[in-house]
Amino acid sequence: MSRIVYVNEDYLPEEEARVSVFDRGFVMADGVYEVVSVLDGKLIDFDGHQARLKRSLEALQIRNPLSDEDYLAAMRKLVEDNDITDGTIYLQVTRGNPGDRDFAFPPEDTQPTVVMFTQSKPGMADSPAAKTGWKIITTEDQRWARRDIKTVQLLFPSLAKMEAKAKGADDAWLVEDGKVTEGTSNNAYIVKNGTIITRELSSDILHGITRAAVLRFAREAQMKVEERSFTVAEAQDADEAFVTSASAFVMPIVAIDGAQIGDGKVGSVARRLREIYLDESRKAAI
Amino acid sequence: MSRIVYVNEDYLPEEEARVSVFDRGFVMADGVYEVVSVLDGKLIDFDGHQARLKRSLEALQIRNPLSDEDYLAAMRKLVEDNDITDGTIYLQVTRGNPGDRDFAFPPEDTQPTVVMFTQSKPGMADSPAAKTGWKIITTEDQRWARRDIKTVQLLFPSLAKMEAKAKGADDAWLVEDGKVTEGTSNNAYIVKNGTIITRELSSDILHGITRAAVLRFAREAQMKVEERSFTVAEAQDADEAFVTSASAFVMPIVAIDGAQIGDGKVGSVARRLREIYLDESRKAAI
Repeated sequence: MSRIVYVNEDYLPEEEARVSVFDRGFVMADGVYEVVSVLDGKLIDFDGHQARLKRSLEALQIRNPLSDEDYLAAMRKLVEDNDITDGTIYLQVTRGNPGDRDFAFPPEDTQPTVVMFTQSKPGMADSPAAKTGWKIITTEDQRWARRDIKTVQLLFPSLAKMEAKAKGADDAWLVEDGKVTEGTSNNAYIVKNGTIITRELSSDILHGITRAAVLRFAREAQMKVEERSFTVAEAQDADEAFVTSASAFVMPIVAIDGAQIGDGKVGSVARRLREIYLDESRKAAI
Repeated sequence: MSRIVYVNEDYLPEEEARVSVFDRGFVMADGVYEVVSVLDGKLIDFDGHQARLKRSLEALQIRNPLSDEDYLAAMRKLVEDNDITDGTIYLQVTRGNPGDRDFAFPPEDTQPTVVMFTQSKPGMADSPAAKTGWKIITTEDQRWARRDIKTVQLLFPSLAKMEAKAKGADDAWLVEDGKVTEGTSNNAYIVKNGTIITRELSSDILHGITRAAVLRFAREAQMKVEERSFTVAEAQDADEAFVTSASAFVMPIVAIDGAQIGDGKVGSVARRLREIYLDESRKAAI
């Protein structure tokens, strides 16, 4: 059975899910996205992703064409039609198809483009990688300045991911002015003497929905949290390291640029945060 | 009559010119482009644009799916089918449609996507703006680090263009570390005491095809050329300023951030370079 994909209020077989070549998302990367996880057929942190979607759209002055209820209904229909138990829903909104290409924005009545599709990942929460941890490399952060807007300008993160793969690693942390910004598609953390350290929010990094939830759970569990940037050397000398994202949840890091972190095994803080995050997220899923 | 658009060897009415929502160009800005001008039905500097296309593709390890002859034949057919006398041909090549979304590159046998379309601009070489000049603003350059690769990550240039329009200006020059990099879609120049000054080639700026041609013509005409970066203050104090691009050719600048350049009229160097460029380009057009 072909996957059903949402394109501008239509539900189409994936082979027929297309956009105009004049779509600003295609010719100008003029669009934003979200990835919402699905566990047991329910959406994780839908409200958080909707809030960030609206923030991204506002930052780019793209009109939000649907209500929260519309997005929710469409996502639920895709989960059902595609029989998703565990997986993700990808959502992209672009400034639409003005019928031609111009650096200037199109007329305000141009209809934004909305695309949603599911990715089935059975057993996603029980990923074997979470038990052994990721090995990562570091590389210079060459992205544009507004990483707080979740745009589809993902070429550099994709290149960094490929650099990591070429070096036998799972992912890359990006480094700017000597400090780690974040991973290719996740926020970065270290743990030292029981304190969880992660870069403070700014336009330098994505304001992770999973980051916000994990830090909240950490504080509720009386863990100490410090929001500040850190160097690669500090990370290599840490007791633990991990990343968070909507689809990787809390993923332990066991090596950075070949240097083992702690004892090279998944750390207790990362393991506990993953458990708490998954438990609480399942409870709150809609 | 509907414009005819090229999509992966098909010639389609523009309404039917579509790409998959899974195309890497749409979900990840993983594509490059060129804009070739057409004057009197002939292509301007086709070889230069082909050379840069290949350079961009190689930098991103995207396979070039067509030969120079294929591109040339397709462009000529589009010019003919769409009855283009003066205008542009837009060409975009992406890493293609792997059938799903992943930060990692798709398998090497994934067919790249090729899209080409024309834009008719009758009398383009006699643009009234070239007689009065552009007013520009300056704004901080927030783009990614590899501006030498002509990718479709054009969101920031588009935002800068809109900032210029909001301020009643025609375009924006981007400034990094106190020095002008380039315009939103053109290279930037000043003229002081008869010397043409333009930023040296590096990954900080696009390696303009029109830039290369104009500098060659300038040197052939015994004009002095200095390739180095300059500040906004230096530009405001210059005798002339101008930009070059494939579609604007040589476009004079008469004001920068409200400061009049020279006597506020189109300068003689810019006027002469525009004439030479258009004359020579028409002669060499194919």
